[in-house]
Amino acid sequence: MVESPQNLSHPTIKDSWFSEISDHAFPGQGFMIRVAEILYVGKSMFQDVLVFKSTDYGNVLVLDGIIQVTERDEFAYQEMICHLAMNSHENPQNILVIGGGDGGVLREVVKHDSVKEVTLCEIDQSVIDVSKKYLPEMARGFDHPKVKLNIGDGFEYLKNSTNKFDVIITDSSDPEGPAEAFFQENYFKLLHNALTENGVIITQASESVWLNFRFIKRLKNICEKVFPQVEYAYTMVPTYTSGQLGLMICTKRSDWDIKKPLRAWPEKVEATINRYYNRQIHESSFILPNWAKHYLRETDNQN
Amino acid sequence: MVESPQNLSHPTIKDSWFSEISDHAFPGQGFMIRVAEILYVGKSMFQDVLVFKSTDYGNVLVLDGIIQVTERDEFAYQEMICHLAMNSHENPQNILVIGGGDGGVLREVVKHDSVKEVTLCEIDQSVIDVSKKYLPEMARGFDHPKVKLNIGDGFEYLKNSTNKFDVIITDSSDPEGPAEAFFQENYFKLLHNALTENGVIITQASESVWLNFRFIKRLKNICEKVFPQVEYAYTMVPTYTSGQLGLMICTKRSDWDIKKPLRAWPEKVEATINRYYNRQIHESSFILPNWAKHYLRETDNQN
Repeated sequence: MVESPQNLSHPTIKDSWFSEISDHAFPGQGFMIRVAEILYVGKSMFQDVLVFKSTDYGNVLVLDGIIQVTERDEFAYQEMICHLAMNSHENPQNILVIGGGDGGVLREVVKHDSVKEVTLCEIDQSVIDVSKKYLPEMARGFDHPKVKLNIGDGFEYLKNSTNKFDVIITDSSDPEGPAEAFFQENYFKLLHNALTENGVIITQASESVWLNFRFIKRLKNICEKVFPQVEYAYTMVPTYTSGQLGLMICTKRSDWDIKKPLRAWPEKVEATINRYYNRQIHESSFILPNWAKHYLRETDNQN
Repeated sequence: MVESPQNLSHPTIKDSWFSEISDHAFPGQGFMIRVAEILYVGKSMFQDVLVFKSTDYGNVLVLDGIIQVTERDEFAYQEMICHLAMNSHENPQNILVIGGGDGGVLREVVKHDSVKEVTLCEIDQSVIDVSKKYLPEMARGFDHPKVKLNIGDGFEYLKNSTNKFDVIITDSSDPEGPAEAFFQENYFKLLHNALTENGVIITQASESVWLNFRFIKRLKNICEKVFPQVEYAYTMVPTYTSGQLGLMICTKRSDWDIKKPLRAWPEKVEATINRYYNRQIHESSFILPNWAKHYLRETDNQN
């Protein structure tokens, strides 16, 4: 299924530079990565798939023209989307990952000894295939005995899941495109229904406070209709647009502040197993610049 | 001195996109901003100066091909380099800014009522001139009655200053080029000598932990030879490489943790006068990803 033909080309790559430009998602700015070699070009049933070897960021996975992960900085995203949620649950045993076909989130989830089973529901088999071939450090997540794989639509999967998962991580692409439905109220209702009593969900919240801030605010309002506690956090990822990515975390519990971790690894363990996440960065990831803090608060009932 | 001829062009601008690429400072990656109109192109005695109006980031100042400020996000940098240092001094009265020819740091310094005089020492008059014409929201810093202007070399100025300034802010360009000397031990000795007893200095520390991390480590070691307390902080600036910039803060005092502000505005005042800086972000700006935290600590005596 995953082939490596010679003389590959892709419309986003010119003179050995990949350019990421999106007039819709981040108008007027662009990011470039220098290409050493194009490894894979294909169209799946769902999206345009590109993998290239870069000169300085390792192998890079691009879907529909947008960087999903690079080998050099992927841990910043994978660790944060996973551990912010997992450490906000006292005893996470049954975990669902929606999307996440590169396997990186799985790799992080199984760091938590409490986990009994983690199910990954990815609609696009080709993302898993190219990741296994070109992103082995992420795809090793698939090899763990606690991992269960489901190829199919996250929505359909959730419809058949009630009171089942302690933590659900939505590791989707951005809302412009096939992942759009993952940012709407109906989806969050399904997540709520699929969660156990003290369940926690986290979802990538599309770019940063600098870019799609109204979108983030709307998403927060949608989540607040469904969950009693909703907070916006961010992680720094140098190859994502403007160098950071937002995360929305929601919980069924309202008896403690979700911005403080409920659990933590002993500091020495944490230092060994994580490259990005630590308990201090957990809390600081919720601290926003003044203007963003006030905007998220002040317009709570307006958007 | 500042002219606006027609049909301007610049080697970094092609097909209405400005590209920032530097094989030395950040190999293998680049950042683009879409240009609405080129406003100024010139060569000063010290550097290549470009100002353009962008489609989405306001006016942009570029020196030697590197983005210095954009109107949309400059406050993130100016507020942090200023207030991290100013709020680490109990009563900052006499302030020196080295570089900072756009005026933005001056605008921030005079927010502190304790200030009696702030001197700006900028070597390149043309930066001040273009900023007054094209970056008025920053250059209004020059209009404040407490501001004193000195056109000349920061090094020479410091040689004639002993026990004089409570806070010194070095708002220079990156170390590749004319600002190189601002990152060497001799410079920090001059700063130390120019400071009063409890003095504080801050300097931009060149890019981020993701890029020039060895450089940052070396810079920290240099500072530690001169100052008893040295800490690395960062601020998020979406148009800087990889979306953030490091700051090195040093103080003559060792009797309190410089990562905690010594002073703070009342929260309501802070919310009104600052768009980025608040007391929570002051503390969180020192919290680093695991790998960076350990690298900075572990190799203390090696580089």
